Amino acid sequence: MTVATDYYPSRVATPMALIPRVEPVVYARGTYAKALSAEQLRSYEENGFLVMHDVFDPAEVQTYADELHRLLQNQELVGQPGTITEPGSDAIRSLFKVHEHSALVQQLVQDPRLLNVACQILGSDVYMHQTRANFKPGFTGKAFYWHSDFETWHVEDGMPAMRALSCSVLLTDNNASNGSLMLVPGSHRYFVPCLGETPEQHHKQSLKKQEYGVPSQDHLTQLVDQGGLETVQAKAGSVIFFDCNTIHGSANNISPWARSNLFMVYNSVENALQAPKYGLEPRPDFLGQRTVQHVLSPS
Amino acid sequence: MTVATDYYPSRVATPMALIPRVEPVVYARGTYAKALSAEQLRSYEENGFLVMHDVFDPAEVQTYADELHRLLQNQELVGQPGTITEPGSDAIRSLFKVHEHSALVQQLVQDPRLLNVACQILGSDVYMHQTRANFKPGFTGKAFYWHSDFETWHVEDGMPAMRALSCSVLLTDNNASNGSLMLVPGSHRYFVPCLGETPEQHHKQSLKKQEYGVPSQDHLTQLVDQGGLETVQAKAGSVIFFDCNTIHGSANNISPWARSNLFMVYNSVENALQAPKYGLEPRPDFLGQRTVQHVLSPS
Repeated sequence: MTVATDYYPSRVATPMALIPRVEPVVYARGTYAKALSAEQLRSYEENGFLVMHDVFDPAEVQTYADELHRLLQNQELVGQPGTITEPGSDAIRSLFKVHEHSALVQQLVQDPRLLNVACQILGSDVYMHQTRANFKPGFTGKAFYWHSDFETWHVEDGMPAMRALSCSVLLTDNNASNGSLMLVPGSHRYFVPCLGETPEQHHKQSLKKQEYGVPSQDHLTQLVDQGGLETVQAKAGSVIFFDCNTIHGSANNISPWARSNLFMVYNSVENALQAPKYGLEPRPDFLGQRTVQHVLSPS
Repeated sequence: MTVATDYYPSRVATPMALIPRVEPVVYARGTYAKALSAEQLRSYEENGFLVMHDVFDPAEVQTYADELHRLLQNQELVGQPGTITEPGSDAIRSLFKVHEHSALVQQLVQDPRLLNVACQILGSDVYMHQTRANFKPGFTGKAFYWHSDFETWHVEDGMPAMRALSCSVLLTDNNASNGSLMLVPGSHRYFVPCLGETPEQHHKQSLKKQEYGVPSQDHLTQLVDQGGLETVQAKAGSVIFFDCNTIHGSANNISPWARSNLFMVYNSVENALQAPKYGLEPRPDFLGQRTVQHVLSPS
């Protein structure tokens, strides 16, 4: 366990300025694996995300969508720790550790179209920090307010550095009407210290409604003024890769069209979790794999 | 007061099918005034709405935005019947009868760029059924679920026929990220009977959160399957005209960009209000002008 001063403090008592990122965005100059072109790497590095269209063909999308549907209908999963239901209902909204529930998803996390991108950007072998299936239903899908995943993983899981990335495989079309992912380009270059001490067992609430680890309106305005705001519009079968520190969120979904995706977080093997900050108890494994295991190498 | 059978029943106890509209969409074949081209009229008739870009120039937009800002800052208006605040705060979300609070807005409702369009579509002189200023703040702006205005006006205000239209003057840009107006093209051709009896004094809640007069998910899916869904993306200074029966709604606004507009409803002088349906008490005047007054003619 490190006792050095934390370069990225958060859950602070008084407002602080944005903190410039110290880590690279693309590690080892993108030489560890071959997946993205120089232009794609440059774009990821600059914006903090990359939308790749038509990565999976319609037959593959159908296969994964059917698998997701099968999993979400599995009422045996309701009440289990990694199963998150909509507030006030038994409808499954998120299912964590989905690769352990499904051989198909286990295969997907090792698919070179995803894995090689992760290894190339992170400059090392990787392992799964978190996986989940997200289902945002039509008509009633709830919003997710702005956040950096890294802020939470750093504070609550003890992830030391910005050397992880998320990958969202779209299983339904994302358009201007169904609560698509919104990202703030360039926001990954700043750590946003958030106000407020974290209560114990925070994660039991935070998956349904965020109250801690929330960037201030001033910081968000500053970042959007710099980089604008991108609402992803992409067909099913597209993949969004984004840096662990890119600010993102989504509006609610009143359209009739569900928005579902498979979401996986690759972490560098050189970025294993340490103790959580501020004496917090570690969160359950389904939120952040606490030991490096099942190491994946580019193929 | 009419006692004939109501062709458009709603707030019913058991689900009903969609009811085809009987009235025209464009009255008097669009000859009563000259404002829209034949193509614009055709598009309005087919879709139930028309987005006109750059109707007001930037200087005019600034004038109205300043006026809106002035009105919303007026704390004397808080607590008055036509002033709607955000749930749990004193921030003004909507201000009704805005043309009576502001000489500028009084002038705007008579602007030929709006008035002549209204008269041309409705085929007669008109009067203001309702006006309001809407302010959807950045970060915290709430969603409005799908509804037909006519359903409410018919049941709760006794508006006899679909012979009114709304006009929204955009004072801020509407984009894919800030909870823009979404409309269901072609939905104006069907009356959607809604489930559930209406409690007395319903309007005191309905302006903050809709529970009655809400179309079913089945009906909405049916209408979107037919006509799709349009999310308005237009600059400040644009105007959206839409039929009183076009189904519309909007997602919440987590972007930093406020979304505000001036909203006015023109009703035909031949469509004066009658008694509300089902023995309901009439709602206050600010929600629906109960007598035809200040008749406006095309210029």
